[in-house]
Parts: sequence; structure tokens; C-alpha cells
Amino acid sequence: MNDQELLRPLIASNTTKLVLVVLDGVGGMPINGVSELEGAKAPNLTALAASSACGLQVPVACGITPGSGPGHLGIFGYDPLRWEIGRGVLEALGLGIHLTENDIAVRCNYATAVRDDTKIIIKDRRAGRIPTDRSRQITGMLQEQIRQIDDAQVLLLPGMEHRFALVLRFSARLDQGADAIEDTDPQKEGLEPVVPAPSGSAARHVADIALKFVEKAALLLKGQERANYILLRGFSSVPAIPRFNEVYGLKSLAIATYPMYLGLTKLIGMDTLKVAGGIAEEVQALKESYGRYDFFYVHVKKTDSNGEDGNFQGKCRVIEEFDACLPGILSLAPDVLVITGDHSTPALIKGHSWHPVPVLLKSKYVFGKTSAAFTERECLKGELGTLHSTDIMSLMLANGMRLKKFGA
Amino acid sequence: MNDQELLRPLIASNTTKLVLVVLDGVGGMPINGVSELEGAKAPNLTALAASSACGLQVPVACGITPGSGPGHLGIFGYDPLRWEIGRGVLEALGLGIHLTENDIAVRCNYATAVRDDTKIIIKDRRAGRIPTDRSRQITGMLQEQIRQIDDAQVLLLPGMEHRFALVLRFSARLDQGADAIEDTDPQKEGLEPVVPAPSGSAARHVADIALKFVEKAALLLKGQERANYILLRGFSSVPAIPRFNEVYGLKSLAIATYPMYLGLTKLIGMDTLKVAGGIAEEVQALKESYGRYDFFYVHVKKTDSNGEDGNFQGKCRVIEEFDACLPGILSLAPDVLVITGDHSTPALIKGHSWHPVPVLLKSKYVFGKTSAAFTERECLKGELGTLHSTDIMSLMLANGMRLKKFGA
Repeated sequence: MNDQELLRPLIASNTTKLVLVVLDGVGGMPINGVSELEGAKAPNLTALAASSACGLQVPVACGITPGSGPGHLGIFGYDPLRWEIGRGVLEALGLGIHLTENDIAVRCNYATAVRDDTKIIIKDRRAGRIPTDRSRQITGMLQEQIRQIDDAQVLLLPGMEHRFALVLRFSARLDQGADAIEDTDPQKEGLEPVVPAPSGSAARHVADIALKFVEKAALLLKGQERANYILLRGFSSVPAIPRFNEVYGLKSLAIATYPMYLGLTKLIGMDTLKVAGGIAEEVQALKESYGRYDFFYVHVKKTDSNGEDGNFQGKCRVIEEFDACLPGILSLAPDVLVITGDHSTPALIKGHSWHPVPVLLKSKYVFGKTSAAFTERECLKGELGTLHSTDIMSLMLANGMRLKKFGA
Repeated sequence: MNDQELLRPLIASNTTKLVLVVLDGVGGMPINGVSELEGAKAPNLTALAASSACGLQVPVACGITPGSGPGHLGIFGYDPLRWEIGRGVLEALGLGIHLTENDIAVRCNYATAVRDDTKIIIKDRRAGRIPTDRSRQITGMLQEQIRQIDDAQVLLLPGMEHRFALVLRFSARLDQGADAIEDTDPQKEGLEPVVPAPSGSAARHVADIALKFVEKAALLLKGQERANYILLRGFSSVPAIPRFNEVYGLKSLAIATYPMYLGLTKLIGMDTLKVAGGIAEEVQALKESYGRYDFFYVHVKKTDSNGEDGNFQGKCRVIEEFDACLPGILSLAPDVLVITGDHSTPALIKGHSWHPVPVLLKSKYVFGKTSAAFTERECLKGELGTLHSTDIMSLMLANGMRLKKFGA
């Protein structure tokens, strides 16, 4: 497993082009004997695998099922055990906001509370899962009424059903530990909500503002039948994470259709390009920006969505859709092309899983002829062996002749 | 990845004989579909691979191209990320001197300087790459004139063209950090040379002596047309590195033709035997010393040299030359024989590379029949899998029945 500190002094400049395609959750499992990658008709991928270096990569550790955050961080060479992206931050990124080191992000639920003279009791922690339209209306109303609390700008991002995100934006970079605040969700109905409690002095000021937000919102929500209270979870701030471009000496662009992936890559300092449409439009965007960057991350979402839905055939179709777009990528003749996933999402499991993820690397400096196809079982035979996700960036840089020799 | 501290308490004594052959830079890459190891006609190696345990070893870390120092340290079981051998030390070892913990070694360049009333300007950082003969003459003259500065003996080792090495030999072991001195090379022509600057107090005394050396030398070189100044780079001292024989309970001998490898092994406490000639002479030396040691390191240089030159056929011929000598090694019936490289040097790349290196281990305690030949692609299938270079010594000791059980 590679460390960015090992790479930093070895970075060499070059003009080579590196392309990293992440087929989200691409790793699968057999249903009727074949996995999604084995079942899909993907002649271009199959041919590419035969002339590439293949292998399997472990996103976090053996047996560990990664979320999308750790899955991606690993591929980008950030040890996911060291760099944790908080749940509030991931939620906010998913809702499309760009976060800075001045921000605290929080996941919020509308809840139903009842009051007597002395206390508030949570009757429904999800406000009866109110419809998204209604939730958006209420969030819009709150945002109009609450724009600033003390020195914090208040940003509300509407989500699905009872969910939304709160971002407290301060005027300066926050101290370490400013986000160490307990969830206010009592976890069980019939209990009082918890007061936002700071774990240390660095979080006290933020906790005070969070409490003021809850109280202001409760007043404004008084008339609501169901969504008359707010529970806060996953207080988190952006870690002081190394910049991708600085660590690797690359000018990088992220191409994706979903906000979360654009947010995550912006967080590590990549330029981002939001594409409307599917894989073909993403490949078109890659072509159009190809002259202006060294490193391209292209994210394909629907492999994961179909896996999550247990839709085996649907996931095969997305792999086939990517296969049809692959010649467009190859026509650019990148010096290094890697295709992998951030984790496995087998339709059999209907969710992320712990299985190692197939990885394929094409460059001038590979053996090839060790894997006959881009499938879990063929990648197992491949010349890359089983590696850690954080090895991928080192391999891309090495194959792009962008690393100096270590020692004399 | 194994650690010497894990092995130390497990070392058992035995009379078994262990032979480690390092074919320098043996790993290659396909040109026209076959790599150097695949293209060489090596029937003895092929037969041996079929009855041995094979695998691939990663010298430093995935994607990292090792220098010869880290490549060898790993094979000898020293974590190359922990034990760094400085550039000055490697240069001096390569010029054939034995270094101790009392020494500071420095790489030196002759340079051309011009002086005005107030300053010295470097006009040529390499003194026009003066011929080696001339450089040797000048170095000999300097050595005659400068033998001692304060408490440091001054040793000058002539090198190629404008290069030589300086060793400052003190009367006692140096403090840690005594070598933390900046290069005096300004890196660009037209600038003043940098004064040797200590990074901490431990290096102050050495830096003073280095400055005196530069000044004394500049006086003596005043009449020279081109080589009239000296630039110092890569100040380094020998780390307080564990002794190979003590760590592993072995009596060891290094057999090599090149000074660097003899110097490096002497550094870790091996006995060394410089052989004039080629592989046949080295095997002959192995035979003659076989009764007197437990562990033998035999270094074959020319696989690397041919790889560096991009001479694919030449590298194949060296592999074939080794193959012809292999029966001589096997006739000794060592209990454990390992054949590997310190890194890959593909002729395709004309330099060291990051690719994992084939490794073969013969002993009574292997399965065999998993690899059909000693090639990169066949070793990938082998029973050793992909291991870290620092695992090789543990495997040799284990197969030599020289390690006790861990725990009860």
C-alpha cells in the first residue's frame, strides 16, 4: 500500500495523458453462474483486457465494504483509513454544494415533535417521511427566514423526503475539532431531542449556533402538522486534505453526472465538469477537454444504481453501454488508461460489498495476455495481482513516466 | 512484509547452506511479444522453475522504481523505506572504498569558476566534462596535498570524467545528523556556489571541514584551465544498520565483480570476495568458498547493464550465460537456492523500472509444478504469489530450517 509522502519527492514532470474511468460499483457476483461483468457482452473491454495489465484492487481492507467516499479516496491515492470524509460533508456534496475549510456540514431530518410545559418529545424521527415536494417547500421557507446566525451564514440544501443538509459557513477556516458535535437525534421515538453537545472547546461556538438554528427553525415550523422540528446528525467539516494536483504534479479534470462525485473531486482540488446525459456525453466531454489537462477522472454512475436495485440485467446493459463508448476513449490514445470501480455492488447483494474490484491498466509498459477478459475471475490471473486501491495512482504515474527512481 | 525484529528471536542454528543469486535488473518487458526472460534459451532455469517455488517480488512499493541500493537492501531483508543509503555513500562504495560509521561521504564535481574581486561564479558545473585521465591526475595531486583537515582524514576517490568522491574520516563514530549538509552545487550556471550549510548543530563541524576542503582545493586548482573549483553533493553517512550475520545467525559471503555491491554488502557486515571475470568465475569462487560460509550472495551485473543500454539480445545472452553456469551451482546441492533480481531493467525502458521481479526458490519444502519457466508471466502463477522483497530472507531461513516456531 502506497503513501503519498513516498511519492511527493519522486514526482517528475511529463506531458503524458492519464485517464481513470470509475465504473461505480462495477464488481459483481454470479447469478446463475455468471457475474454482471461475465454476463455483459463487452467485446471492446474484452479485447482491451487481453492487451492490458489486469488485477483486483481492495478499496479499504479485506472484508470491508466501502462507502462511495472511501472507495473514491483510495483510488485517488488517499488512504481511506486516514482521510475520513464526514457524513454531513458527503450529504452536502451530494446535494451539489461546494464546500470549503470554513464550512460545517450537517445532515438534517424533519421530525414530528410534541410539546408540554416542560419538554419536547420526538414522536416521529422522520416526520412521516413527508413528500419531497413538501419538504422542499418548507426548506425554501426556512432558508428565506434564516440566512445568518451570528458570524455564520446559513445554507439549506433540500433533499429527498424528510432529509436536507445544513451548511454553516464561517468567515475563516475552522479550528480542528470544530465539528466534534454529537447528533441531536435521540435515536428512538418518545425521547427528548439531544442538545447539540460539543466534544471539546473547539466545537463550542459551532454547537451554540447549531442550537440557535434548531430553536429558530422550531419557531418557524410551529404551524406545521408533521415537519415541526429538526434533528441534526453527522456534523462534519472538510479535512485539510492534500491537493491532488500538488501531490501528483498533475492538472486534473473530473467528469461526472452526479453532484457527489463532482463535490468530492472539487474537495481534493480537481477541476470539475458536470455533464448532462449518459456515458456518451461524458466521453464527448473528455474529448473536448483532452488538450487542457493531464489527468482525467470519468465517473459512470449507473452500474452502481442498477446493482443497488438488484437489477442484474440493467447493470449488464450499463457495462455494454460503456463498452460501446470505449473506442471513443481509446481513439484519444491516452498514455495510461485505467478502468476500475470504487467498490463492488453485486445485484445479488443489492448494495455495496467487500469484494475486491477488477482493475485494468493499459499502457506501453505492460505484459498483457494474462487476463482474457475484464471480469472478476480473469482479473484474478492478471499481472497486477491483488493490490490496494491506493496503489493505483502510483501505477498510473509510473506508467506515465511521471515518477523518478527511489534511491540511487 | 517482514520485519527483522520479528525474525531475530526466532533464529535457529543449523548447518544448511543458502545461496542467493541476484541477476541485476533481470525483470524485463515484452518486445515483439516476449520479454528477455521469455526470449532467452535457458533450459536449466526452465527445468529448475518447474520444480521450484516461484513468484514475483515488489522491491520497494507498487509503482516505485528502485535504485540499486534500495533494491538490494530489500532482498537482504532491510526495509528500503527505513534504511536509506545516501548518494555520497553509494558513490564512494561504487568507487571501491570500505566505509565505517566514522565516515562522511560526498559526491564531488570538478567545476569551472570565474572570480572577480568580491565573488566566485560557476561557469560550468561539470568543468566541460574533462577526460577521466585528466580528472584522475588532478585528484591524485589534490590527495597528495590534502591528507588531513583538523580531526578529519581526507580520502579522495577518482571517478569518471568530472566526478570523484570525498570521504571525511573522523576518529570516532559520528552523531546522527552529522551528514545533514546542503549541496553546494548552485544547480545553474552563472550563480555563486553555495556554502556547505548544516541543517542542525550535529552537522556544523563537518560543514566547517567541508568548507575548508573546498577552499584549500580551490587554491591548489588555481592554475587549472577548467577544473578549478569543486562542488559537493549528497553528503551522507553510513546508517547504524543492523549486521546481516547477527540478525540472521549466518556466516555470509558476498561474491561480486563490481565495487558497489561489494561495498554495500560490506556495509551490512558480510565478508566480500571480488571476482575478476564473469559468471563462470563467480560460480568457481562460490565452489571454492562453499565450505566456509552458510550464506552466499552472488551478484550478476550484466543483465542490468544490457537492459540499461536497451540491448534486448545482449540481456538474453547474459541470461543464457547464467543458465550455462547454473548446473555448477546446483552441483553444490544448496539446501536453499534463490534466484531473483534487485529490480527490473527492461531493455524496452533502457533503465530501471517499477515492475515486480521474478523470484525462484528451490528447496526440499516447495510444491513446484506451478510455474513452467522462470519468466515474469510464469512466476505470476507461482506458489510464492506476489511478495515484498523483504520476505525473501524469511523464506530462505524458513526453507533452511533456520527459524523457530512463533508462539506456542
